[in-house]
Amino acid sequence: MLAVTILGNNSAVPAFDRHPTSQVVTLDGDNFLVDCGEGTQIQMINYKIRRSKISHIFISHLHGDHYFGLVGLINSFSLLSHQQELHIFGPSPLQEIIEMQIKVADTRLCYPLHFHTISGADTLVDNEKIEIRCFPTHHRIECYGFSFREKKKPRKLILESIRENNIPLHFYERLKNGEDFITTAGEVIKNEWLTIEGPKGKTYAFCADTKYNETMIDHIRDADMIYHEATYLDNLRERAEERFHSTSKQAALIAKKANVGKLLLGHFSSKYDTLEEFEQEAREVFPNSELALEGVTFKV
Amino acid sequence: MLAVTILGNNSAVPAFDRHPTSQVVTLDGDNFLVDCGEGTQIQMINYKIRRSKISHIFISHLHGDHYFGLVGLINSFSLLSHQQELHIFGPSPLQEIIEMQIKVADTRLCYPLHFHTISGADTLVDNEKIEIRCFPTHHRIECYGFSFREKKKPRKLILESIRENNIPLHFYERLKNGEDFITTAGEVIKNEWLTIEGPKGKTYAFCADTKYNETMIDHIRDADMIYHEATYLDNLRERAEERFHSTSKQAALIAKKANVGKLLLGHFSSKYDTLEEFEQEAREVFPNSELALEGVTFKV
Repeated sequence: MLAVTILGNNSAVPAFDRHPTSQVVTLDGDNFLVDCGEGTQIQMINYKIRRSKISHIFISHLHGDHYFGLVGLINSFSLLSHQQELHIFGPSPLQEIIEMQIKVADTRLCYPLHFHTISGADTLVDNEKIEIRCFPTHHRIECYGFSFREKKKPRKLILESIRENNIPLHFYERLKNGEDFITTAGEVIKNEWLTIEGPKGKTYAFCADTKYNETMIDHIRDADMIYHEATYLDNLRERAEERFHSTSKQAALIAKKANVGKLLLGHFSSKYDTLEEFEQEAREVFPNSELALEGVTFKV
Repeated sequence: MLAVTILGNNSAVPAFDRHPTSQVVTLDGDNFLVDCGEGTQIQMINYKIRRSKISHIFISHLHGDHYFGLVGLINSFSLLSHQQELHIFGPSPLQEIIEMQIKVADTRLCYPLHFHTISGADTLVDNEKIEIRCFPTHHRIECYGFSFREKKKPRKLILESIRENNIPLHFYERLKNGEDFITTAGEVIKNEWLTIEGPKGKTYAFCADTKYNETMIDHIRDADMIYHEATYLDNLRERAEERFHSTSKQAALIAKKANVGKLLLGHFSSKYDTLEEFEQEAREVFPNSELALEGVTFKV
């Protein structure tokens, strides 16, 4: 099951018990961390996210509220005797910044750490379970969104047909992957007689920091769920524009035009002590909008 | 009044709701931040420390649990429209690390930021209210403790003698500073007839991360209060030695040999979920020992 847990939904400075950006995308046993503002490791403890399960970290851009917690997390992994490889994806010069801090501390990490510098729209991870891509947003500095596309599930067996055709048990897995069965007599029993299509994989997209930007739509079209920043309410649209951020209404417009299933709103400005209006404003344009509240897990 | 408020008392990774090292030394209206582990700015919000009052920050060494919160705090100061100068004292290459991160974020700070690279034993601040010095400790990497010596208070007026000698009101401040009074007839009225010595200024020393290290004693002798790390209990003395840390008993021995007034214990290893034994162990050697609990303000 594809899901996302929000660890931080605020922009810039911590305020009103809201924390800088971070969220964990989970798919079955795998945990992917998206952005890592200061204090993310403490939020992970608060919300019982198992740090040891994190194998990939994606950093959208190098504004502090999106990555100042990364070096501490990398460090803690080592102190907690993390074993598995850790892959970090982010724009240049993230690697240089982190490696410099590891070096001056004279720290030797006890696990393999791999940096991957991202640029343009690109596939970052592609395996039998998931495809993760990055795409550029329109922010004050180089910035990327990330899409998580769960691969199509295996085909489902039609047990009745399987019995009728005496398909041996050991061939079931190959049926699920779409193979035809060939009998000892050479007869072909078509896969489509024995199985039906599996459920479609879900897609989630994290749209990072961005001003209103329709070029993003191609990268998130028909996603089941997106997280889009809504730093301001729409009466501050000019300020949003100036600062390369979006309003709640603009986030909803993008969600509508991209024909997504659900919109999560986040990255709220510290000037707002309450958030209800963000949800109301977005819902006028795109009804299935919801606040990305910290600690909440949203099933995609 | 000289005092210290503990913001974080844990070592390495956050655990059991304890945070990495940070504390605020206050003297009348001035706030001096000592170390700034990840999440310090959130701890400042939790404990109602006014961020805008911080004018000087002292970083003991470049292990992450002592400075990973610094860049976020510098950033937040700017977002919160901090105006006054900020002075940061720490070992090289702290300045390079921070400036690189400010540069890649394309951030322009709205206040003057001054870095001061420290080395050896040195006077860092010296004004009419306080003298702040750094001194080397014995840690795995270059590391410094800091002493805060409140200047002697002004002399106290003996009102009866002042009246007898008809000293004019406008001269009282000069009397407090030790000046003699000369009458229009040229007669000298000695200051010591008119005033008594003011109360002695207090001294607090933060001893940073260190293995057991008697050479430090010269820098903290007779201090009214010190904070000394106690990463382990004494049954792990060998581990402490290997990792350039101290045990609670060793901290107490230093306090005793330096003839200080009071010992605060901190920088506890994340392996300990409770702390009572640290206090018990230290008190066997140096009775006036206390846990540096987070959120507590200790008057020096």
